[in-house]
Amino acid sequence: MINSIKSDTIIKFNGHEPFEKPDLVVVEEPLEIRIGYGAADNRQQKSVSVTMRTPTGHDFELAIGFLFTENIINRFNQILSIHYCTDNQRQQQENIVRVELHPEVQLDFQKLERYFYTSSSCGICGKASIEAIQVQCPVPVNSTLQVSSSLIYQLPNIVEEKQVFFKHTGGSHVAALIRVANTATGSLLLLREDIGRHNALDKLIGAALQQNLLPLSDTLLFMSSRASFELIQKAVTAGISLMVCVGAPSSLAIETAQAFGITLIGFSKEHSFNIYSGSPKVIH
Amino acid sequence: MINSIKSDTIIKFNGHEPFEKPDLVVVEEPLEIRIGYGAADNRQQKSVSVTMRTPTGHDFELAIGFLFTENIINRFNQILSIHYCTDNQRQQQENIVRVELHPEVQLDFQKLERYFYTSSSCGICGKASIEAIQVQCPVPVNSTLQVSSSLIYQLPNIVEEKQVFFKHTGGSHVAALIRVANTATGSLLLLREDIGRHNALDKLIGAALQQNLLPLSDTLLFMSSRASFELIQKAVTAGISLMVCVGAPSSLAIETAQAFGITLIGFSKEHSFNIYSGSPKVIH
Repeated sequence: MINSIKSDTIIKFNGHEPFEKPDLVVVEEPLEIRIGYGAADNRQQKSVSVTMRTPTGHDFELAIGFLFTENIINRFNQILSIHYCTDNQRQQQENIVRVELHPEVQLDFQKLERYFYTSSSCGICGKASIEAIQVQCPVPVNSTLQVSSSLIYQLPNIVEEKQVFFKHTGGSHVAALIRVANTATGSLLLLREDIGRHNALDKLIGAALQQNLLPLSDTLLFMSSRASFELIQKAVTAGISLMVCVGAPSSLAIETAQAFGITLIGFSKEHSFNIYSGSPKVIH
Repeated sequence: MINSIKSDTIIKFNGHEPFEKPDLVVVEEPLEIRIGYGAADNRQQKSVSVTMRTPTGHDFELAIGFLFTENIINRFNQILSIHYCTDNQRQQQENIVRVELHPEVQLDFQKLERYFYTSSSCGICGKASIEAIQVQCPVPVNSTLQVSSSLIYQLPNIVEEKQVFFKHTGGSHVAALIRVANTATGSLLLLREDIGRHNALDKLIGAALQQNLLPLSDTLLFMSSRASFELIQKAVTAGISLMVCVGAPSSLAIETAQAFGITLIGFSKEHSFNIYSGSPKVIH
């Protein structure tokens, strides 16, 4: 059974006599992602990530999305199989996912230590971080997508309806792909939730990769979070050309979006939003 | 010059004709933390972290706090010196901090690969994560601190006044220590801001360690963010006994707070809050 939400008893203070009440909180549990080449190959397995995630039934998608956005794989068919590890008693360990890679995938262990270390053109800085992505994704995102402001105003409502875990706990993020039918109407294509914004986006991109939906140049990405550099990096890898965030963007997120021709919208609300990069894709 | 905030031009949509306006965004830049033993010691230096942080003039505190909360050092005098690295032209690189450790500090490189890997009592899971902290901090936090609900209602206002970067950008987190004079009055002891909540807390704990304020059992920690497992882990290390968060807590944050006797308050607002753990410290 998957536990994404846990019930609890809290004490509520609201100016009157404090009282006990039942409450729901979002579950946070570690997930380890291991990669290997199957039993027949004597290359060793490697643990590439431990992330604190919400178990929502999308651990395999999270692993796929992580490996793809970290540039460890670049096609879905480079994954031969995925399974949960088992312990000595052959019990499934639902917090360790193992991915068997195609023998052709060459692992660059230095790169697995984070791309920052291998980029040294100007030491370690924002510019070097952007250049490191440009090595992986040399071509700017190519898209003819245009979206009307009226659709962007509707996004929080379109997504809110399906955002189960946030509704109950107020403690999770959502990442959603919206298919834009014409400039003014959009429909929800995929939605994933997690306590961590990076995990929510990895689950979403992993699902899209598995369903052969990439590149995502004609869909719009909606995130309930702020826009950080790492989210833009993941969006670039998936070919996303328009990203709408509920919160504030960082300086480096904006610079990265500009470098890749991504339209970046922040402070998205029902009646207003700000464009930080790539305004021609948005029609009044 | 330190750039914590950057000016930008945005296009604002708010239902009327869109218009250009100046805007301020919070800066996000990588910071690498390296540790070594000085030139005379032939043990190699090691890069232990690259974090995306806001340069606010507190990089050394961030490094100190990170090394302390990750249990690499356990006393401030285990640090001999801290400096920014220089490149071949002897230019200071303001995104690489190097910390020289006392020769007595034994580095456990396995532990540096994250404590999760070394804890195997039940594989990798929330319970193992809590047990891993219990190895580092075997004694529950000891404190006689009591706080009235009226002080907790005031916290957002006490902190908001001094929260410079959030005021201008809406895109940064704050971590603040409040000294509780008697149960009902509190004064701001220390405050740090960053785009990342972990960094804000590391800066704060680093500053407190440097100023010889630990253990922090008689102060209250206020965080503008949600409460995740890692924040509670850092709070435990610093001996914090009462933590107030603006956002939601996770299941594992609550369980960790309970295991260490920490009072955990979430959804802190001007007129209400919820207690998730350790209610006796709060007086109506």
